[in-house]
Amino acid sequence: MNSKKSDRRGFLKGSAALAGLAVGAIPFANGKALAAVDQRTIKQSVTPDEPTIQDLLYGGRSSYETSVYRTPSPGAGLAQVGLRNLTPLQDSMGVITPAALHYVVARDLTLPNIDPRTHTFMIHGMVDRPLIFTLEELKRFPSVSRVHFLECTGNSGLYHYREWVEDRKKGRTDIYAIQGVHGRLSCSEWTGVPLSLLLKEAGVQKQAKWLIAEGNDIGRHAKSIPLAKAMDDIIVAYGQNGEALRREQGYPLRLVVPGFQGVNNVKFIRSIKVVDEPYYLRPEISAYTNLHPNGKASWYESQVGPKSLITFPSDAHHLPERGLYEISGIAWCGRGAIRRVEVSTDGGKTWKDARLQQPIFRKAWTRFLLGWNWNGTETQIMSRATNEYSDIQPTIMELAKLWGNQTTPPEPASEIASFWETAAISQFLNNPIQIWKVSQDGSIRDGTFSTFKMNPGLVR
Amino acid sequence: MNSKKSDRRGFLKGSAALAGLAVGAIPFANGKALAAVDQRTIKQSVTPDEPTIQDLLYGGRSSYETSVYRTPSPGAGLAQVGLRNLTPLQDSMGVITPAALHYVVARDLTLPNIDPRTHTFMIHGMVDRPLIFTLEELKRFPSVSRVHFLECTGNSGLYHYREWVEDRKKGRTDIYAIQGVHGRLSCSEWTGVPLSLLLKEAGVQKQAKWLIAEGNDIGRHAKSIPLAKAMDDIIVAYGQNGEALRREQGYPLRLVVPGFQGVNNVKFIRSIKVVDEPYYLRPEISAYTNLHPNGKASWYESQVGPKSLITFPSDAHHLPERGLYEISGIAWCGRGAIRRVEVSTDGGKTWKDARLQQPIFRKAWTRFLLGWNWNGTETQIMSRATNEYSDIQPTIMELAKLWGNQTTPPEPASEIASFWETAAISQFLNNPIQIWKVSQDGSIRDGTFSTFKMNPGLVR
Repeated sequence: MNSKKSDRRGFLKGSAALAGLAVGAIPFANGKALAAVDQRTIKQSVTPDEPTIQDLLYGGRSSYETSVYRTPSPGAGLAQVGLRNLTPLQDSMGVITPAALHYVVARDLTLPNIDPRTHTFMIHGMVDRPLIFTLEELKRFPSVSRVHFLECTGNSGLYHYREWVEDRKKGRTDIYAIQGVHGRLSCSEWTGVPLSLLLKEAGVQKQAKWLIAEGNDIGRHAKSIPLAKAMDDIIVAYGQNGEALRREQGYPLRLVVPGFQGVNNVKFIRSIKVVDEPYYLRPEISAYTNLHPNGKASWYESQVGPKSLITFPSDAHHLPERGLYEISGIAWCGRGAIRRVEVSTDGGKTWKDARLQQPIFRKAWTRFLLGWNWNGTETQIMSRATNEYSDIQPTIMELAKLWGNQTTPPEPASEIASFWETAAISQFLNNPIQIWKVSQDGSIRDGTFSTFKMNPGLVR
Repeated sequence: MNSKKSDRRGFLKGSAALAGLAVGAIPFANGKALAAVDQRTIKQSVTPDEPTIQDLLYGGRSSYETSVYRTPSPGAGLAQVGLRNLTPLQDSMGVITPAALHYVVARDLTLPNIDPRTHTFMIHGMVDRPLIFTLEELKRFPSVSRVHFLECTGNSGLYHYREWVEDRKKGRTDIYAIQGVHGRLSCSEWTGVPLSLLLKEAGVQKQAKWLIAEGNDIGRHAKSIPLAKAMDDIIVAYGQNGEALRREQGYPLRLVVPGFQGVNNVKFIRSIKVVDEPYYLRPEISAYTNLHPNGKASWYESQVGPKSLITFPSDAHHLPERGLYEISGIAWCGRGAIRRVEVSTDGGKTWKDARLQQPIFRKAWTRFLLGWNWNGTETQIMSRATNEYSDIQPTIMELAKLWGNQTTPPEPASEIASFWETAAISQFLNNPIQIWKVSQDGSIRDGTFSTFKMNPGLVR
């Protein structure tokens, strides 16, 4: 089999079809041409074992799909404060996260197992008519189905980064930065009733400005949410990706607060109290807030900024050889739709527009894709997102300035933890550009925290 | 608790908010107002049983979700010819079908369990460069993720209807027409490589016009597909709803042929042979084809016509009381996008435009919704879809004419089977308007085959 020659002939023609994808006339390194094809020579492993009745009623995964799981969060001590299992973004495709792989962040160690026939949802407080609904009643109301991301407030943040680094030092090799640092992030099609509709039924009084949403989990998680957000697009959701919510997502009822940090999306929702000011609940002022260098804290900053992440290749992957690959990633923003994603494969020197999966949903993942011919040399790859209002995802240095950092980066700044601490970057709502360092041997590792010093051009 | 009075006050205001949804000033019958709310009086069933490690790694459903399954197809004899488990459309929400509930129609009684590391996909025949790809290689090619429906060719057809009627007569009560007759239908976000790109790599020769796609299932299912369709939008798919294909959907690789009847979407795809004419394979000429009254058969009619179906309420549901409900359903078409769905709640006399879930995908489900105030009297509800080319979903009588029926409907036409047989309606590609008969007691049953005689206005 003269594969080398066939390769060249085959791929030159194929590359022409790829020109429109901004790849240029680069020969594809994948696909092996056959000089003479003989079907009998093709090895196919077929095991005709019978599917079980259960497989047919409600299907599970192939027995070969053993590597894609939401693994426990880094941080040994975290098991004490709640359940944290993270989405394997390195294996994500398109814009839907399967419910089985949607990240789980819960303050308790257990999840309630609620009977939907007895669960009720109440609206009370500053309303003309306090109302209480069963699930069956809610399902008779006009519904909406919308694709939205959820992201934990701490995603990509200091604490999680540090915990991941420490776990790696201790020898934990089952979780990568793409999942362990950024995996508090998923995207689903949510179905439910617009909260605004139910509030109108209840008759919100004139002086009302805030809502206190309370869940039915063990710890009775509660959150102050602006009334204006509810009148805009909050969903009282009972469906996720075409079926009932999963228990880890608040079965049988949760809030979906599009574009707002995860903590607002109260699971197992049991009541909403309409009030005139936020309740300054312990969790929402002790955490989920950023301490500025002047000692003041910024409460109720909820909207997730423009953000993007290359999911392939990332530190969970290994490039087997030089040649053409497709860089794939996700971009999202709490404010409107993603308009543009640029990708750099040369450490931030030059940027190319990636193509965006259509249609683009607001406050949801947008999948971006860009062909890349890796020439086998060491480099850094990264992406940056721009939303429809021209908000641009910042570098880590820009983010530090944004959060009030007045100090010069320390020397040496190679230590993640020390840089973060000195820079006084928030542990919440972090959206810096994520850099992946590609080595000559095809291995990939996190580069966000060491690259900025080596390439001052990154600091715009 | 003066619930009656509170109800009236509460719902009058709420209904105003619904006016924009074409519901009019109709009081909502759902939601119970509370004169005085006391949180302690609200019963909440919380069982804090610990989720298992397995639940957290890859989540399953709530233990209360026991009624939503893809039940075996009607037709006692069918178990002999393959696996047939159908999607519970009565519980569908939005436009995504969970992979676990996607319908299964297989010609064999077993499904291959293929090792993705050894599976290969070959392109050969009239090409300059026969090519063979591993899954890993395919994943390096530019990919697309698109939402598309799949529908079995026989869905809603004569044989399945008759089998369902016969099963019901024999006392089988676990499957309704909405699932048993129409449930060979699902919709997913599919991810994979455009087949056109791979064909260009192989270099399709000038005289080529057709493809022969062959699967790696036990029976080696194969199908002739026009080359032009491949150059348009066929996907060689490895992903469904953000994860690897399920085994029932052809793991690790299948064709997705958007808008074409299910049989074309070859699962476990192992090879495509590029040829100059279709192969007239036994399955594609003995079945999947419509016999016209003149004795001629129309082969290779593949595109699914405009179609819609009210999924709630349908014969799997029961309306507990008169009052406001939301009619919910799906519309789809093999040719382009759905532009309009009309709903009649008076047996076809008048029609109202339903609102359509946005954005609308081409060759995919579109969810439609319309508020409906049921006054408690017997009626028929139905929907009809129009696509962007103004193709309109036909009545059953129009469909009979379309397929060449020249006869007058028989007297009496109350028997489904005899009408179908006399009318010579196709068993394939059936898209007539589905009528649901609502009785005074709130029960709902199929009305497509008896209503047309009672309401000549349906025959347009």
